[in-house]
Amino acid sequence: MQLSNEPTSLETVEWEDGVVKMIDQTRLPQELVILDISDIPTLVAAIQRLSVRGAPAIGVAGAYGVALAVHLHGTDGPELEEAIGVLRAARPTAVNLAKMVDRTAALVSLGLERVLEEAHLIRDEELRASISMGEYGADLADELIGDAAARTMTICNTGGLATVARGTALAVIQTLHERGRLEMALPVETRPLLQGGRLTTWELSRMGAPFRLLVDGAGPFLLARGEANLVFAGADRVAANGDVANKIGTFSLALASRHAGVPFIVVAPESTIDMDTPSGSQIEIEDRGSDEVVSVRGVEVAPPGAEALNPAFDITPVEFITAIVTDRRIIRPDQGQSPHTVPLGELKQSHPGGT
Amino acid sequence: MQLSNEPTSLETVEWEDGVVKMIDQTRLPQELVILDISDIPTLVAAIQRLSVRGAPAIGVAGAYGVALAVHLHGTDGPELEEAIGVLRAARPTAVNLAKMVDRTAALVSLGLERVLEEAHLIRDEELRASISMGEYGADLADELIGDAAARTMTICNTGGLATVARGTALAVIQTLHERGRLEMALPVETRPLLQGGRLTTWELSRMGAPFRLLVDGAGPFLLARGEANLVFAGADRVAANGDVANKIGTFSLALASRHAGVPFIVVAPESTIDMDTPSGSQIEIEDRGSDEVVSVRGVEVAPPGAEALNPAFDITPVEFITAIVTDRRIIRPDQGQSPHTVPLGELKQSHPGGT
Repeated sequence: MQLSNEPTSLETVEWEDGVVKMIDQTRLPQELVILDISDIPTLVAAIQRLSVRGAPAIGVAGAYGVALAVHLHGTDGPELEEAIGVLRAARPTAVNLAKMVDRTAALVSLGLERVLEEAHLIRDEELRASISMGEYGADLADELIGDAAARTMTICNTGGLATVARGTALAVIQTLHERGRLEMALPVETRPLLQGGRLTTWELSRMGAPFRLLVDGAGPFLLARGEANLVFAGADRVAANGDVANKIGTFSLALASRHAGVPFIVVAPESTIDMDTPSGSQIEIEDRGSDEVVSVRGVEVAPPGAEALNPAFDITPVEFITAIVTDRRIIRPDQGQSPHTVPLGELKQSHPGGT
Repeated sequence: MQLSNEPTSLETVEWEDGVVKMIDQTRLPQELVILDISDIPTLVAAIQRLSVRGAPAIGVAGAYGVALAVHLHGTDGPELEEAIGVLRAARPTAVNLAKMVDRTAALVSLGLERVLEEAHLIRDEELRASISMGEYGADLADELIGDAAARTMTICNTGGLATVARGTALAVIQTLHERGRLEMALPVETRPLLQGGRLTTWELSRMGAPFRLLVDGAGPFLLARGEANLVFAGADRVAANGDVANKIGTFSLALASRHAGVPFIVVAPESTIDMDTPSGSQIEIEDRGSDEVVSVRGVEVAPPGAEALNPAFDITPVEFITAIVTDRRIIRPDQGQSPHTVPLGELKQSHPGGT
C-alpha cells in the first residue's frame, strides 16, 4: 500500500495495472491520500474501516477486488475462492457489495480480461446513473424555481465519493453548477460523522461551486429565513409508499422545508426503491451507540461515561417530499404520485461533461 | 491563579478570603478546574476567554470583581477606578456585566464589607430567581403532562454554570428530578460550541439525573417518534410579542415540537423580556464566522479555507411557543397570552433543597 498526495486522475475507486486505487475517505478533508491496494486483506480492511463508503462505491470496490483476486490467484483454486469469500463478507449489511462481487465472480473462469470488463461496466453503469439523476434533478429544479438562481441546501455526502463520480443529490447540485444555475450550496455538516462538513464541502470545493457550511441546527432556521430555495437529500431506502429513510437530520430539513414552502427533493437510484417495504414504519432504525456522539475525530466532547441516543437515520414521511428523482424517472408525491404509479423512463445522458 | 481539582464546595463563581473562585468552563467536561483569581487582569482574561459564561454568572463575576478591586486598591484612587473600568468593559455586549459592576461600584466608598454584601445579594437574587423558575416550570409540567413521567428535551447549557446555581430551563429539569418526576433528559449537543454536550451533560451527571445525549439533527425526529413529552429552552431575549431569540437550533426543536404535539416551553428571568423590542424581526442575528464551525475543540472538520454561515442564534416565533416561564409568572401564548397581558406574580421559594 503506497500513498501519493498528488494524483493525476481522481476517481473514488479505480483499477490500474493490477492495483485497486481508492481515495482514503477517512483522511479527508485534511489529506487527499490515494491508497494503492495490491492484496485482498488490505482491500477488505479498507472497506471495513470506511476508507471507501457509499453502497455504489463499495460495489465497485468489490468488483475490482474480484479482478485483483484473479490477478493474484488465477481463475480457480482454493486461494481464489477464499479471497472472493472474504471480500464478499467485508461489510455484511452492504447488499451492493455482495451483489457486485457475485456478478463479477460468476465470470472468473473466463479470465482476468472478462472480469475486468465487467467491473468497468459496473463502474460505468453507476456513472451513467449519476449523470441521469443530475439531469432529471436539474430539469426539475428549472420547473420548480423557474429563472431564479438555485440556492440549495443538502445533507450528508451524496457525491462522487459515495458512488463513483457525481453521486445522487450532489450530482443534481453539480449539474446545476455546470449549467450556470447554482448561486449557493449550503451543506449541513451532518453530525455525528460530519460527512457534510468533511466530504461534501471537499467535493464542492473541487467542482468550484460556491458554498457555505452550516451546523445541522442552523438548517431549519435558515430555510425559514429564505436562504435556500431547493433542498436535496439522498436516500438509504425509499419505501413503496414514498417514505424515505436517510441520514439522521433529514426529517428536520424536510419539516422546515414544508414550513418555509421550499421544495424538498430526494435523489436516489432506482435500486434504492424497495417495493417490499410498504412504508417507513416498517424500517428499523439502527442505534449506532454513544462513541460517535461523545467524541469528534478522536476529541472528547462529553463527560467520561456519558451515553447517547444515536439513531443512524430517520424517516421522512412522503407527505413532506415534493419529488423523488431517480436515474429513470421523477416521482411527484406533491402531485399524488408514488413509486407505484410512475413508469420508468429513459436514462438521461446529455450531461455535457459526461465520460 | 491556582488550580485545584477536588473542590469541596462547587459554585460557578464565588468569593473566598480575597479570591474570586470560578469553574473554568473551557476545561469542562474533561477536567473540573477551579480558578483562584486574585488580580483584576486575570479576572478580565477569564471573562474574555469564556471561563465564565452566561449573563447572570458574568454579572456575579463582575460584582465580586469590584470587591476584589477594593480589596486590592482600597476605596478610592486611580488604580481602583481603572480596575473597575476594565472589568466593566471585559465583554461589552454582556449588559448584565456592566449593570452589576455599576451596582457594586456605587458602594465602594462604603468599604469592602458593604461591596461584598451587595455582591452576595446579587448572587442570592440569581439563585432565588433560578429556584423560582424551577418551581413555576415544574408546576406547569404537572399541568401539561399530568401523571406521566417527564421526558424532557433541551438545548444549549441553561444550568447553574450559566447562572450561579440551577439556571433557567435546566433548573426546571432539576426541579422535576428532585420531585421524582424525571424519567429521562435528552440534551442536544448544540453545535458549534457544544454547550449541550460538554456542559449540560456534566450538570445532569452531577445532579444524578438520567440522560442521553443527542446530536442536534436527531432532536426533531426523536420528537416525532414520541421520545420526549416536554421541550425546555432558555432565551437570549424575549420580544414584547413573545418571539424568542435563543441558541441556533432552538427554532428547529420548536417546529418539531409543534409537529409532534409536544409542549415547547421557554424559561428565562424577567430581565430577558425586552419590551422595547416589538417582535423577533427587530432582533439582529450575529454571524460568528467560520472558525467555530470548521473546527471542533481544535480539530479541523472541514477542508482548509472552507467558509461557514454561522448564525449564533435563531428566532422562534411566538406561535410555536406553549409557555414562557419566568421567575415571576407563566405566560401562555398557546392561550393567547403575551408579556403585555400577564401581571407579575410572587417569587416561588418552596424548593426543598434551596439555600
